[in-house]
Amino acid sequence: MKLNSFLFHERETLGVVLGDFVVNTRLLNAHYPEIPVTMLELIDRGQAAKDQLQLRINRLKEGEFVQVSHKLSEIQLLAPIPKPRKNIFGIGLNYTEHVAESARTLDTSNELPKQPVIFSKPPTTVTAHQTAVLLNRKITNQLDWEVELAVVIGTGGKNISKETAHNHIFGYTIINDISARDCRRAGQWIVSKGQDTFAPMGPALLTADEISDPQDLDLRLTVNGIVKQNSNTKFMLFSIADLISDLSTVFTLEPGDIIATGTPAGVGAGRNPQEWLKDGDLIEASVERLGTLVNHVKEI
Amino acid sequence: MKLNSFLFHERETLGVVLGDFVVNTRLLNAHYPEIPVTMLELIDRGQAAKDQLQLRINRLKEGEFVQVSHKLSEIQLLAPIPKPRKNIFGIGLNYTEHVAESARTLDTSNELPKQPVIFSKPPTTVTAHQTAVLLNRKITNQLDWEVELAVVIGTGGKNISKETAHNHIFGYTIINDISARDCRRAGQWIVSKGQDTFAPMGPALLTADEISDPQDLDLRLTVNGIVKQNSNTKFMLFSIADLISDLSTVFTLEPGDIIATGTPAGVGAGRNPQEWLKDGDLIEASVERLGTLVNHVKEI
Repeated sequence: MKLNSFLFHERETLGVVLGDFVVNTRLLNAHYPEIPVTMLELIDRGQAAKDQLQLRINRLKEGEFVQVSHKLSEIQLLAPIPKPRKNIFGIGLNYTEHVAESARTLDTSNELPKQPVIFSKPPTTVTAHQTAVLLNRKITNQLDWEVELAVVIGTGGKNISKETAHNHIFGYTIINDISARDCRRAGQWIVSKGQDTFAPMGPALLTADEISDPQDLDLRLTVNGIVKQNSNTKFMLFSIADLISDLSTVFTLEPGDIIATGTPAGVGAGRNPQEWLKDGDLIEASVERLGTLVNHVKEI
Repeated sequence: MKLNSFLFHERETLGVVLGDFVVNTRLLNAHYPEIPVTMLELIDRGQAAKDQLQLRINRLKEGEFVQVSHKLSEIQLLAPIPKPRKNIFGIGLNYTEHVAESARTLDTSNELPKQPVIFSKPPTTVTAHQTAVLLNRKITNQLDWEVELAVVIGTGGKNISKETAHNHIFGYTIINDISARDCRRAGQWIVSKGQDTFAPMGPALLTADEISDPQDLDLRLTVNGIVKQNSNTKFMLFSIADLISDLSTVFTLEPGDIIATGTPAGVGAGRNPQEWLKDGDLIEASVERLGTLVNHVKEI
């Protein structure tokens, strides 16, 4: 299923995307009270709720469909999970070429990491498709982009094996891991990565069953139409299964947890000369099958 | 008010501590439906809810009190906020002597930080008074202690001034910022600081009005009865007002956010020879007025 979240009468609402239309689960729920009405509710209620939703969608008659759906162009989109219940787990230095470019221009090592490098982005970083990324000149003059495949956990767990890791995935979306390179403090990245609006997410979420091989998806990012990043998830140093397994040895993973799996080469910090985002810039972050997440920069 | 959280019929329940007794807000709520029943509900509903709760407690007649209260010794305590809605904000290197000991033995600079050093601890780190801190030998052989004053935000905000920062504080509790020193990855601290049970919190929370000067509180930590840390919050490099103001320039602060304000000297990593926690160790972390948070180490 292709899912999204949007505002309906001021309330976060789960949508099921069908072509140019989106089925409104709150309207569906009025007739079928078993239907979950937010993304996190769907995730929490597990496979049975997903099956019920799918079945209900499949059985919608044309007249019903019109009553419970909107044109995709007419809804106010939110991030697929607008309010995560903990900080997003970010993964640093997870593509070989990006390790090299970071070592040249940031303070990181040139050696490939032996274990995933983990940081976090607070829930207040999350913002929707077609919203502004805020550039606060009092804090940063080095605003940068990072297109990433994001994995949303369905079933939580501890010490998950690589072999079973994929059973724990609810779905996939895109995160642009916006980073203010001049905001590291004692080497910690949370101020660089954690400012409000620094995690554009969306536009939609594809459930895990829709993507047969998440380790073979093209990623691409453009700024004002010019290609800056262009790679494929096959070049991850630590695969999605590696990441889930490793993270779950450290943290108990929970339903709705989000892992931003790292960015390939081509960030602004790694260019010669370096390039930074400025007021009005248009950033388009694409992952194959998942669409394009579009945001603009707004100086505050 | 002195508040805590405890389990009542399997549900998280807000308690008001009066001497050796705790008033059960769920029982109170059955008669007075305006009374909030969890700590986060109380925080979210602001000053009016706090006033209502205080008034109701003041008016309890003796017969009523017996019906709605338990002996403190008979409840199953939880952390004051058992399930924070985002990662705890941790502050590193916020006491002069601790900066020096860290520079000697860890990989941090000997210079005093010019801005607060921020990291995060996921909600899954939170554990209650008198529970086990888990020592996972597969991950770490350098488990360490850090007594800290924790500040809980009441009213959120962005760009909060130092002068008004204290208006945003709901209350204070103790956090033991357990740290596995050998788990840093590319300098990031989240694996060191973020493992399950690495944020013992409690035993209770004092509302802000109860503490006239939070910058003059003794902190003390013992392991198996031997004093390891002994300092005062007056020695913070960045005061609580500094921290709230600084954090709020980076992140929008929200009700229920938790800031662990840093630890003084005397951690195990800074000793000669270094000392690490082992199975069965008893850790007692005290902050003046807030009591003593007791936990033991359990190897898994």
